[in-house]
Amino acid sequence: MHGAADDRRAEALADGSRLAARLFDALAGGTADPPGVTRAAYGAGECAAFALMAEAAGDLGGDPVFDPAGNQFLTFRGADRGRTVYVGSHLDSVPHGGNFDGAAGVILGLAAAAALTRLGTVPAFDLCVLCLRAEESCWFPHSYIGSKTALGCLPPDVLDAVVRSDTGRSLAGHMRDLGFDPEAVRRGASRIDRARTVAYLEPHIEQGPVLVAEGRPLGLVTGIRGSFRFREAAFHGAYAHSGATPRTLRRDAVVAASEFVMAMQALWERMERDGHDLAVTFGMIGTDPAQHSFSKVAGEARLCIDVRSQSEATLEEVRRRLVETGLDVAARRDVRLELGPLGGSTPAVMAPRLLAQMRAAAATAGIAPIEMASGAGHDAATFANAGVPTGMLFIRNRNGSHNPDEAMDMGDFDAALALVVALLEQPAEHWG
Amino acid sequence: MHGAADDRRAEALADGSRLAARLFDALAGGTADPPGVTRAAYGAGECAAFALMAEAAGDLGGDPVFDPAGNQFLTFRGADRGRTVYVGSHLDSVPHGGNFDGAAGVILGLAAAAALTRLGTVPAFDLCVLCLRAEESCWFPHSYIGSKTALGCLPPDVLDAVVRSDTGRSLAGHMRDLGFDPEAVRRGASRIDRARTVAYLEPHIEQGPVLVAEGRPLGLVTGIRGSFRFREAAFHGAYAHSGATPRTLRRDAVVAASEFVMAMQALWERMERDGHDLAVTFGMIGTDPAQHSFSKVAGEARLCIDVRSQSEATLEEVRRRLVETGLDVAARRDVRLELGPLGGSTPAVMAPRLLAQMRAAAATAGIAPIEMASGAGHDAATFANAGVPTGMLFIRNRNGSHNPDEAMDMGDFDAALALVVALLEQPAEHWG
Repeated sequence: MHGAADDRRAEALADGSRLAARLFDALAGGTADPPGVTRAAYGAGECAAFALMAEAAGDLGGDPVFDPAGNQFLTFRGADRGRTVYVGSHLDSVPHGGNFDGAAGVILGLAAAAALTRLGTVPAFDLCVLCLRAEESCWFPHSYIGSKTALGCLPPDVLDAVVRSDTGRSLAGHMRDLGFDPEAVRRGASRIDRARTVAYLEPHIEQGPVLVAEGRPLGLVTGIRGSFRFREAAFHGAYAHSGATPRTLRRDAVVAASEFVMAMQALWERMERDGHDLAVTFGMIGTDPAQHSFSKVAGEARLCIDVRSQSEATLEEVRRRLVETGLDVAARRDVRLELGPLGGSTPAVMAPRLLAQMRAAAATAGIAPIEMASGAGHDAATFANAGVPTGMLFIRNRNGSHNPDEAMDMGDFDAALALVVALLEQPAEHWG
Repeated sequence: MHGAADDRRAEALADGSRLAARLFDALAGGTADPPGVTRAAYGAGECAAFALMAEAAGDLGGDPVFDPAGNQFLTFRGADRGRTVYVGSHLDSVPHGGNFDGAAGVILGLAAAAALTRLGTVPAFDLCVLCLRAEESCWFPHSYIGSKTALGCLPPDVLDAVVRSDTGRSLAGHMRDLGFDPEAVRRGASRIDRARTVAYLEPHIEQGPVLVAEGRPLGLVTGIRGSFRFREAAFHGAYAHSGATPRTLRRDAVVAASEFVMAMQALWERMERDGHDLAVTFGMIGTDPAQHSFSKVAGEARLCIDVRSQSEATLEEVRRRLVETGLDVAARRDVRLELGPLGGSTPAVMAPRLLAQMRAAAATAGIAPIEMASGAGHDAATFANAGVPTGMLFIRNRNGSHNPDEAMDMGDFDAALALVVALLEQPAEHWG
């Protein structure tokens, strides 16, 4: 069955898609820094992106407002003006990054507002398209500054303690430079009334290869993986002559590190088979260039360990087993394991009700997404851990993120747009 | 039974030992470069060591002569003046090295000459204490320059092609600086008549920990391990987000390298159990500091591989299995293995008859040495591979070599002296 309503809907979605395409082009042009784009947090590129989104919102009758930290709220009227659904993401990028990481979430919000306007649909609640700042930790070494300031929960010392990697100026200084109010941020001022917040939805390009491998345009995110990290672990053995030191007298740090990597790989496989969500990565390994030689048994091997899971309990279990395994390897190989400082982040669970609404919206729009964890961190984690019902929608993307080769097809973006519009059309009682 | 002959013998050995102690002290004082000593090949420290040995030989009635390359021959008369037994080693050291590496072999030759003189024993053949130059390849990047020039078999292009690491001057230039004759070296001139050479014996501190671990003062060397080396091997995979890339879609170079290291470790254990002489070392490993990150699956892992054995056949077999193993790991983990250039050296077999004579001499002297391979290379390899009946005697040493902490006890040196004196006392018919 295909009728006039379907045609109107298709035209409205096409309107939204055209706006999105125009915004992506303007953004790429306005923040170009070949190869790719650069939108420094609290820098020129991010401000240009904010201005572009505010202008587009204004054209659609939206109302742009900044909070004291400089996050931008673009609000479109709903039937119930006392409560709000937020759709958004961040607008900064890594240096020479891709055009879609972050921006796709904001532009999807605006495209949905455009489609709803064209359809003449007033959503159940105010729709606020949220432009967050400073998500990419390459600029300020602290995670989720934009969402934390938006929610009024940035630890106050961060304002002065973290400095931007290129300028050396503090976060507070950069806020002041742009006319914002770090002292209000320090006091926890926020434009978001959590009690009146219906949901926060963050559409984002997938930063991994899962959707490409699965041949699906969209992924509904079930949770954002938390992590623990030992960034400066090392096995310490003893340097020795490679030809003259028998196997059983060696204290070989490279063999210990290799055995540890393989044991953790085996643990990952076993736990994955048992249904645990898990990723274990040794991204850096190295003997000491000042001391190693091809003809010496290695007396030291440094490595870093990054473990991620949606489940706090799984992280706990892996951490316990990792320490056991490392100490066991060290004891058997007569080397010493130094794990170094422990870092990490807390997993965030996406709201089950919102996930169910998104499933229903996908069915309405005729889209079959998969459900998956987010392995990368996102501002959505801040909202979820602040008690806001939170969802994430991944859009298929080739070549990973944080590089100029990010590649999201507009066809996949259009599928996401159809899903979000269908979601926002749901009546108030669906949102709870 | 203890009689006058035993007393005379003990006094003669004590004489030799006192000379050795005096020479070690003078050498350490004359070439001190804290921490440790520095005796650069064709440099001041090596020349000082040569002069010290020549003076000691002169005091004992020995006759010092240089060959065209500057190696020094300190000859003591034997019963048959037409044939020669050589005892010696090199006198250069690494920068800030230990006092014993190399020098112990020369000083042991002089101490033996002193003891024989005191005993009034004329050995069966001329005893030539040989002072070789330029063994430590840190100075000139070519192995065994001293023994190759002594035997007239240095590849001629080496004279101009290799330069000393600190001066940048060629080997030929350094020879000329000291008044030697690189053109004669180029023609293959040699003072050693191989047909009239009975044996070459090189006493040397052990550079590994075997004698310390076994609680024995001396080791009789059965062969000098050859090697093959891949100094620039690498696994190439793909960089990817550590949180967002599932296990089965990874092309992880660190995991591939770790699996390869462990597989080669297992092969070593198996072959050792089957009686093969073998040492497998991965002394250097590393991800690329310009590209790696704690939050990225590693797209590259470099490593170097050093494999040593007394047996050419074992080296062949390990090389074959190493390539198979590496390619298998690479195929299963969807990465590419690049082995890079292959280097190496040929094993050298010690003369079985000389080994038997040394066993007999040890029994005479009441010493129980072990028999072992030399994992490190030595000038003895050049002599053995030139067809000279060659032996090596290892003296227990703590803390490895090529560092100021080398620690040889004079008690162990005295055991080596007793063994060598007993060997040199053997009648002509024992030498074949």
